[in-house]
Amino acid sequence: MKAAYYRGNKGLAAEPSEAIAPAAGEVRLNVAYCGVCGTDMHIYHGNMDARVAKPQIIGHEVSATVAEIGAGVENVSVGDTVAVRPLKFGAPEDFDKGFSHVGKNLKFIGIDLPGGMQSSWTVPSYTLHKLGGLSLEHGAMIEPAAVACHDVRLGEVKDGEICVVIGGGPIGILIALVAREKGARVIVSEPNDTRIELIRGLGFEAVNPISANLVDTVRELTNGKMADCVFEVSGSAPGVEVMTELPNVRGRIVMVAIHPQPRPVNLFKFFWSELKLIGARLYEECDFDEAIALAATGKLQLDKLITEIRPLEEVGEAFAAIDANPAGIKTLIKCG
Amino acid sequence: MKAAYYRGNKGLAAEPSEAIAPAAGEVRLNVAYCGVCGTDMHIYHGNMDARVAKPQIIGHEVSATVAEIGAGVENVSVGDTVAVRPLKFGAPEDFDKGFSHVGKNLKFIGIDLPGGMQSSWTVPSYTLHKLGGLSLEHGAMIEPAAVACHDVRLGEVKDGEICVVIGGGPIGILIALVAREKGARVIVSEPNDTRIELIRGLGFEAVNPISANLVDTVRELTNGKMADCVFEVSGSAPGVEVMTELPNVRGRIVMVAIHPQPRPVNLFKFFWSELKLIGARLYEECDFDEAIALAATGKLQLDKLITEIRPLEEVGEAFAAIDANPAGIKTLIKCG
Repeated sequence: MKAAYYRGNKGLAAEPSEAIAPAAGEVRLNVAYCGVCGTDMHIYHGNMDARVAKPQIIGHEVSATVAEIGAGVENVSVGDTVAVRPLKFGAPEDFDKGFSHVGKNLKFIGIDLPGGMQSSWTVPSYTLHKLGGLSLEHGAMIEPAAVACHDVRLGEVKDGEICVVIGGGPIGILIALVAREKGARVIVSEPNDTRIELIRGLGFEAVNPISANLVDTVRELTNGKMADCVFEVSGSAPGVEVMTELPNVRGRIVMVAIHPQPRPVNLFKFFWSELKLIGARLYEECDFDEAIALAATGKLQLDKLITEIRPLEEVGEAFAAIDANPAGIKTLIKCG
Repeated sequence: MKAAYYRGNKGLAAEPSEAIAPAAGEVRLNVAYCGVCGTDMHIYHGNMDARVAKPQIIGHEVSATVAEIGAGVENVSVGDTVAVRPLKFGAPEDFDKGFSHVGKNLKFIGIDLPGGMQSSWTVPSYTLHKLGGLSLEHGAMIEPAAVACHDVRLGEVKDGEICVVIGGGPIGILIALVAREKGARVIVSEPNDTRIELIRGLGFEAVNPISANLVDTVRELTNGKMADCVFEVSGSAPGVEVMTELPNVRGRIVMVAIHPQPRPVNLFKFFWSELKLIGARLYEECDFDEAIALAATGKLQLDKLITEIRPLEEVGEAFAAIDANPAGIKTLIKCG
């Protein structure tokens, strides 16, 4: 048994670990793959040390096979392949209105609690979604795909609409793929030319906002109609500056990115064109179900998003390689 | 015939004018009352000289009696009392999605075109809403009440919800009154103590954000539940700073105020609690219908919002008096 332990700034390595027998309502998993998320990179760089206990087993984009079930578990059986919705719900509060995925007492498994970058992982059974016939490689992409399903659902993207995605990293690309399945035309803004090639290879229009004026380009591409829904996924100040210039009347802007500092926002534009800003975080149960169903159709082309697969023993090298390759999309750690 | 002509910085006086015979589709009104809006004050102070032609007849919160109808007018008859929805629609554009009240080619009557602060006024018949049994004094309050109906409608305020209105001027108070009719509990934040007295007299909880911490007070008043819907009506930087601290999970913030400059906004809070920011401008036809129906019930207590009524001949003095009385709510100009 091994696990990837984070021990402080860039200290990340596979070390021996112990399997934990599942208590009532829990399931022990043999982890197959665990994807590396931008959040894992933030932890790796020490940016989240105030929140993350040390040492901590990180990772939350998991596919696995059920190895052992605790008392009372009925939703999965030994041998099932599953994806994990890594949310541990606390006591509900009046403040939360039943939206436990953004509730006050939520704990995120893989940040606040030990994560899935290990060969054996024990989790609450309610976190599991069966993969059916989906491969374990694609199963490790379900968590980020569920983020995209959530973002597109909250953005209320409809057939025939025009979307602009600001930021063509893994989440931005998955949003584009999911929005296209809703019938939307999607334009992606991304400053990295290698990523642009990949995005165009997936069949999307792509704009480099460094070399072209994004607003003018969208105006030309849409004959002045502009965007019905904009996704701000860049986390950048220029992204926030441009996001209000892209929507048409009553257009929506989905705030996917994390902006730790307040940013200047053109509030006049919200008033003038009756825009809507919609915050979106994580996912709900239905988003995982939708992600698995969409992935099963093959239309998400998940193979094209996997940059490389590395064994758990090379987790340190894998993270260093991600740092060195800004054009990369998704690295999977093979844990089984 | 007289009209209030704006001729540049604080130059505003009643001067002789001519009645205009209604063309086809138009109606000539004998104006009864015209309320003074914050926008009229901005014009008066020269802040909108780039947009407003000089001289211009201003005013857009009108009640009137139909005096003469043009060819083809069927929705009103001579003698009907009406409120005016002061929007002149241009050619629809693809950009506008059918929302002509925020369309690219909209002209606002009373800013971009001659307004209603005159004894005789000719307007398109589609701007008119019959007042039924409503008094002409209350009829002049329908335009701002329709703004409030629009804001509350776009905020999707529901029975049993908690609302916080930031800014207890005329629009803020009308929003509070309309939201209460939807079944909401409303807390108003307003820094002027005389206005606070009025707001409490209308039956609302009110907080002075200068002398008390608004967020803490709302937390105490709601036992930690916080607000389901916040209305930013203050137009101030502190209003924008506090607006994201008041909502609970999935709470809405309606952007009613005009913020000419970009303001720092806590976008992280939108992400973290899945907040929504909803821009709201003007009104649609149904909002005028709702405002008239609500006013007819007497529950909007419009008499309490009328600070004073002055004849058209004293329009200059009326505007100077508004400048001198920050606690005032609504001044009506008697035009007939």
